[in-house]
This record gives sequence, structure tokens and C-alpha cells, in this order.
Amino acid sequence: MSLKVYNSLSGKKEDFKPITPPNVGMYVCGPTVYSEVHLGNARTFVSFDMIYRYLKYLGYKVRYVRNITDAGHLENDADIGEDKISKKARLEQLEPMEIVQKYTVNFHEVMTLLNTYPPSIEPTATGHIVEQIDAIKEMVDQGLAYEADGSIYFDVTEYNKRFDGAYGELSKRNIEELFNETRILEGQAAKKNQVDFALWKKANPEHIMRWNSPWSVGFPGWHLECSVMSSKYLGLPFDIHGGGMDLKFPHHECEIAQNKALNPENPVQYWLHTNMLTLNGQRMSKSTGNTLLPIELFTGDSPMLSQAFHPMVVRFFMMQAHYRSVLDFSNDGLLAAQKGFDRLMKVYSDLKNFEKAGRKSEFDVGTLRDKCESAMNDDFNTPILIATLFDGLKPIKSILNGNLSISSQDLSALKDLYTNMIEGVLGLKTIEQDRENEDQKDVIIQILIQMRTEARARKDFTTSDEIRDKLGSVGITLKDGPEGTSWEG
Amino acid sequence: MSLKVYNSLSGKKEDFKPITPPNVGMYVCGPTVYSEVHLGNARTFVSFDMIYRYLKYLGYKVRYVRNITDAGHLENDADIGEDKISKKARLEQLEPMEIVQKYTVNFHEVMTLLNTYPPSIEPTATGHIVEQIDAIKEMVDQGLAYEADGSIYFDVTEYNKRFDGAYGELSKRNIEELFNETRILEGQAAKKNQVDFALWKKANPEHIMRWNSPWSVGFPGWHLECSVMSSKYLGLPFDIHGGGMDLKFPHHECEIAQNKALNPENPVQYWLHTNMLTLNGQRMSKSTGNTLLPIELFTGDSPMLSQAFHPMVVRFFMMQAHYRSVLDFSNDGLLAAQKGFDRLMKVYSDLKNFEKAGRKSEFDVGTLRDKCESAMNDDFNTPILIATLFDGLKPIKSILNGNLSISSQDLSALKDLYTNMIEGVLGLKTIEQDRENEDQKDVIIQILIQMRTEARARKDFTTSDEIRDKLGSVGITLKDGPEGTSWEG
Repeated sequence: MSLKVYNSLSGKKEDFKPITPPNVGMYVCGPTVYSEVHLGNARTFVSFDMIYRYLKYLGYKVRYVRNITDAGHLENDADIGEDKISKKARLEQLEPMEIVQKYTVNFHEVMTLLNTYPPSIEPTATGHIVEQIDAIKEMVDQGLAYEADGSIYFDVTEYNKRFDGAYGELSKRNIEELFNETRILEGQAAKKNQVDFALWKKANPEHIMRWNSPWSVGFPGWHLECSVMSSKYLGLPFDIHGGGMDLKFPHHECEIAQNKALNPENPVQYWLHTNMLTLNGQRMSKSTGNTLLPIELFTGDSPMLSQAFHPMVVRFFMMQAHYRSVLDFSNDGLLAAQKGFDRLMKVYSDLKNFEKAGRKSEFDVGTLRDKCESAMNDDFNTPILIATLFDGLKPIKSILNGNLSISSQDLSALKDLYTNMIEGVLGLKTIEQDRENEDQKDVIIQILIQMRTEARARKDFTTSDEIRDKLGSVGITLKDGPEGTSWEG
Repeated sequence: MSLKVYNSLSGKKEDFKPITPPNVGMYVCGPTVYSEVHLGNARTFVSFDMIYRYLKYLGYKVRYVRNITDAGHLENDADIGEDKISKKARLEQLEPMEIVQKYTVNFHEVMTLLNTYPPSIEPTATGHIVEQIDAIKEMVDQGLAYEADGSIYFDVTEYNKRFDGAYGELSKRNIEELFNETRILEGQAAKKNQVDFALWKKANPEHIMRWNSPWSVGFPGWHLECSVMSSKYLGLPFDIHGGGMDLKFPHHECEIAQNKALNPENPVQYWLHTNMLTLNGQRMSKSTGNTLLPIELFTGDSPMLSQAFHPMVVRFFMMQAHYRSVLDFSNDGLLAAQKGFDRLMKVYSDLKNFEKAGRKSEFDVGTLRDKCESAMNDDFNTPILIATLFDGLKPIKSILNGNLSISSQDLSALKDLYTNMIEGVLGLKTIEQDRENEDQKDVIIQILIQMRTEARARKDFTTSDEIRDKLGSVGITLKDGPEGTSWEG
């Protein structure tokens, strides 16, 4: 039973065979930090966090690199237009690097709330300008890039000639179609071909994020940083490259071309892409108002939601869908996920506290573990894993009730299995005791309310007033209404 | 009444006059991320966080830049030896940038626990290699730096000639003494003078953090990054430069020299330095075991401590000393701080909930506010501020007890004053509601215990058993003992 992963490059599930086991190198395209992290991006990073966790569960030593794009990413993902960060800096009247800091902090907060591990390395585009300039020099030397008016472009036609028509291999696009599709945009006249893409852009006077280079004062093209940082920290070839499926073209296609130029071997073994996210069945879009930020989910501050959802419920909800499936967010879906999450975590918590093992086992932990691992080995199928964990709840309840016997060894193995899968692989934590405490407080106050009602019924107003006053002294107010007594505080 | 700050450069308290009010630029030397953040560093960053907060309280628009040193900082703060991060990477068998990530994450966690604001910009040394190379070129062009064997050194003698003997002006050192003091170290033979310091170092073959430059594959000198990043994001001259006093020499002295080379004006208006920290009266030192990490304070996991201390108690403890005083950490000192913190926060919390304003005021909020601001205007004197806030507790208690009248306008001003000073300037938060909830729960359960005792006294065992059973159903066990009934759960 070994791990199979769906490789976007081949379009097939393939056996996972790392280049130098037990080491695994994984690179994931991180956020461009010019605004609050999108829910779709959050889903992508939670998905790769789960993949990182499962690879570690399998015993691999994973170097997980996820970058921060803090320069070079232009509007519309194109070669012209304003830098996304500079534009936001202008709008918010801040230095571009203040924008970078503000939204990097926001991104990390959301990632921490969603209980993702920090990656092993989190490199930035601005932190690798020298390396990008070095890479461009090499591509120019090889005749795969050319200078035009202070900018450097990658020569897609030449690349295609040398690499057997490789451009388009990931996104399954045909270069002739691309030639026809691509509009000639103003400011791109310097390019030989419209499909060529920028490696270095000469900065306009108003472009404030700029560096010296052999060609001009300018900035690197968006696609280049990922090639440079992945190869610097993982070497070429490396094992896994991940990202959202919207990055397949042009971003990942261009990365492949750049990587091959720098190292003719196939640069990446497995390309993994997460699917899109919808909201109430529709594409998210700011202009239609059909939009939701992670932080709005956590606070409930959105007309789309009836309540706040704990980040662990949101993570559980995400894990209920396969990473390659479209995930539809809705209030109802989240409410259902909350119920499921609470049910799973309640039994799991009882199991952890259960100590009464018997002599023999009437329950086969090994089979359950095999099912869990089979699900995950099938391209990280978390919905099947979760279903399997739910299947286990019935026998576990029987064990907890004393209706099913389990040996101490098997009990320990069962606890380990649930801990490894729930906390380790799925990355879920029990929601801290707040809610439990609140529930307990409510029950105790209800006892007092009942006693007060009884005292009043027997006209023992000394007792009933005493209860009301004492609760009042700790900030709890009783309110008598037609449907009985409620409390606040 | 205006702000005065102690300027280490002049050795005097000076009126604070920013260059372009209301803007203030402040640069603070951040951590070298090769190990868990030291308590002394944490104190420095908490001190500058307080300064940042007070400047904002005064209405300044502060751009606060605090860097992360992730390359170039060699052992013993010298020009030779291994890079601190590379060395740790070798010891931990990780990539240097994995070390950087690990300890940057740790640093941010500790800073968040201590309730410091993130700086406006948090630049890294590796993120500014191009800028450092540009600065070196300029210093070479000016004849203030020279190449030797692929490395570039700053020419201190030449600088001193041109700048009227400026080298040593901050640390009050005499260059002749420095000439005599400085040992000739192996590997430094290439320098013209032993006081010269590296701007760029050619990398030995085993030095893995390396970049291309016009002179050699190498890495920047430690002092250079701060000159480059402060001037890039704040311009020259800028208002405030801060750091621990151990950085005065050579680090800040070299920064001044570099900055003057790049911009002959006095580069920084006010140099602010935090003082050292001791533990039980002794210098902290790993070798003697007299050492304490922030995280050990928060968990209590140290032979030096009788218990864990909440980060807010630790911050309060730090704020009780002036930033330019030596601060001695001890278990007793922290216990005392905890008592003081609890007392202050209890009254503050009651004040926030108090709504019963009268018609006239028998209490002068303005005078109290003036005293608070005077303390802070006197070079950020937080111990006096805290003493002033404590002085206010007695009249506040009288107000809360109804023994002192306050108008609604003054009540609102009083609340604002305590919120601004406690939460705003000192950066203290009420310890989260856990403890308060626990207190409330205890009071409610005590009511039930008392009612049960009364029921038993009148031999109403139905009621007494009902109370015990209902509490039991929510996990609360009553225990009857010689000294009455207690509860657990």
C-alpha cells in the first residue's frame, strides 16, 4: 500500500517515489501580500498543509518551501500594468513594504488560526533579486532570453524549438492557439512574440519598487522568483510543486520553461493543483458582493452567515472535500460541518480519557488504520478518511459503554490512530474549553433557576431573592418572562 | 509640556523635534535569528514597542522599521569566524534559511505573546543584497572603502580624517585606543588597519550563504544592512535609531560611519539605547546556567521559577523599570509584579464597567492625566507612569464605592485615561477571561453548596441529593470534609 498522487503534468495518478528518500522537497506558490488573504488561497494552503502533514506521517523528512510574493506581480498577472503591491501602497498611502508587512502579518494570523504549520522556509521575491539576476544572465547566455529596451524577455519560440514543443505541456495549451489568442497590448511592442514573457522589466519612473541590474533599473518578472527560490532551496529536479489550479497558466507553465532553461532535466516530478472554491454555488467576486474572507467566517461578520464559525470547524469543512474538488462554501454547509466536527471531537475526547481496557479485543484496530491510510494513500482523500473515522465512532462508543471489549495494547493503538489522523494529518484541534465551560456554567445556573422557581412556588421568597441577589453579585442577571426565567452575564 | 528623549549621542535629554512632523521615522536593530530570542532582546523590543505606542499616543504618524538579521552576522560580532546562522544550520542539520524561518517564527510568537505591535516594515538582510552592493560601490567610489583579496573594507582612518575624528562619537571611544586594543586576528591580514571593518566578505568554500557581487562571491558585513535598510525606508537623516546598548560599539558606530559616507549630514537625530538585564543580580550566561528564556517564563519551566508567569505580568514587570535602567529578573520580583498587575487590572476592569456618574466632580482627571504625560514625556518614564496610575486607584475605588462623585464627562475621561495608558501606552491586556470565568463559576457553585448545606440541616435530603447529582452530571464533584464542602471539576 503506497502513496499515489495525481500529477497534473501527466493527468494521472502516479506512485509517489521521491528522488532521495526519505527526503521530500515540496514547493508551493504562496500569496501575493497586497490584500487580506482570500478564502480560496487559504484553502490551497490548508490543503498543502494536510499534504505536508501526511508526508511527515509516512516518515518522510519534508522540506516545505512556500514563498511570499512581495514584488513583481503585476495587475491581471500580465507583463504590463501596475505592481499589485505598489498600487495598494498608493491607495493606502503607505510605503510598498508597509503593505507587504501588513498583509504578511494578516496572512500569518489566518494561517495560525487555521492551525497550519509554518513552512520550513518562507522566502520572498525581494529577498532573491541577486539570484534572479543571475538566472536571467544564464538564460540570456543560452540564447533563451533577449533584451529589448532595458527589459529581458523569455523567448518561448526558441524554447519550444529546443525542448520539443514543451511550452503548454502542463496547461495542455497549444502554442499556435496562444499566438492567436494573445492580444497585442500597449507597452509590449518590444517583445518579439506576444507569448514571450518578462524576466526583467525596466521600471517606469512611477514604479517605486526597483533595483539595479545589468540591463536597467527595474524589477523581476513574476514567474521568475518561483523558479529561482524552488531551485535554490530544493535543487533541480525536486519532488512536488503545488499551487492553486488558476496558477497553471501562465505562471507554472513559465516556471517549467525557466527551470528547463536552467537545468534541461524535467524540473519537477509531481505537479499538484488544488481546485477552486465557490460561495453559495457561485463564483466568488467582489463586484457581485458574493465574497467572504476567512476573518469574516471566524467573526460571523458577513450577511452570508448566521453565526461565527470556529477556524477548526472551517478547516474540518475544507477537509470534508477532496483538494481536487470544487468546494462550495455556504452557511448550511458550515452548520452541518460544525455538527459533524462536534460529534467527532466529543467521541475522540472521551476516547482519550478512557482507560478501562479488557483482556481481549473484539475490535480490529489494524483494519481501521489500513482503511484510513488507504484513503490518504489514494491522492490524499480526506473525505474518505473522515468517513472512515466516523465509521469507527460506533464501535468506539460501544467500547466506551463497556459493550465491546478492547485490550490495553489495542486501546492504545486506537487512541494513537485517532490522534494521528485527527490532530496529525487533518490538523484539527479540540476547540478550547470555552464552549464547554459556558455549557457547564449554563447547567449550574439552570439548577439555581429551578430551585428559585420551586422556592417561589412555595412562597419562600427569602431563598428566591437570595439566589437572584447572589447571582447578581457575580454579574449574572435573571430575567423572568412568560416562557420562564432566562439569564444573562 | 513636550517630549524629551535621552540621546546617547549627546549624552543628554533633548527636546524631541521630528524632521517632518507629524511623521516620525524609527529604526530598531532586530534579532539575529539563529536561536530562541533572548530575554534581554525581548526587553529591548518591548521597550521600543512602548516608545512606538507613546509616539502614536502623541499623535505622530510613526514608520517603525525593525529588521531581521538573517545573514552576515559572524560569531563574536567580528569580521572573521563562522556566520551565526550557518553555524546553527550545521549543528541542527538544516538549511540556513530553515534556521532563519524556525527562529523568526519563534521570535514572532514571543513578540505576539508580549503584545507588541508588529513594526511597520520588517526587512531582512538577505532581502537587501542589491542595495548593500550599491552602497558599497558608492563608498568605494568615494575612497572611503577599499578592496583587499575580494573583500571590501571600510577605511576608518580616511573616514576620521574627512569627518573630523567622528569614529567613536557614539560609543565615546578614542580611535588611538582602539588601534592599540584591537588584536591582529588571523584572516584579517588583508585589512589596512585593524579598526577597519568589512562591508563585503569573500566567502570561504564552506560558507554556504553567498551571493554574486562585482568583487567576489561573498556576503555583506553585518553593520551594512542596518545602514542600507534604515536609509531605504526612512531616508537620511531620520529621527530615531534604537537598539540594545551592547550594540553601541562596534555596530552602531559603524552604522554612523557608513551613513555619513552615504550622506554627509548627521544621519540620525536621536540614538536611544536600552539597558542590560540581569537574573538574580548576576549577568545572564549560558555557561553558568544563570539563564532564562521568555518561553520558560511563560511556562514556568525553569529551576529559577516557582511558577509560570503570564506574558502580561512579564511585560508589566519590564515596564516597572525605566528602559535605560538595568532590570533584574527574579522570581520574587515577578511575584510582586503579578500582585501589582492583578491589583491594577482589577480596579481598571471595575472602572470600565462602572456607569454611575454624578452631577459634579470631586476628582480632577486633568491633573492625573498631566502627571501621566509628564512621566512619559520625561524620556518615557514608565515606572513613574505606573506609580501615577496606582496613585489614582484610591480615588477610583472611592468613586466605585459611591464615596466620591464624578461627572459623566469626567468619568468618561478617566476611563479613557486608564485605557490609553494601560492598554495603549504600556501595552497591557487584561489576562483573558479564563480566570474571571473560573471565579464566577466558583461563586455560583458556592451558592449551591450553601443551599445544599441548608437543605441537609433541615433534613431535606431530596434537595441536597438533587444538587449533588445535578452538579455531578456536569462533571463537578462535591467533597464533604471537616472544614465544609469543596468542589472539583
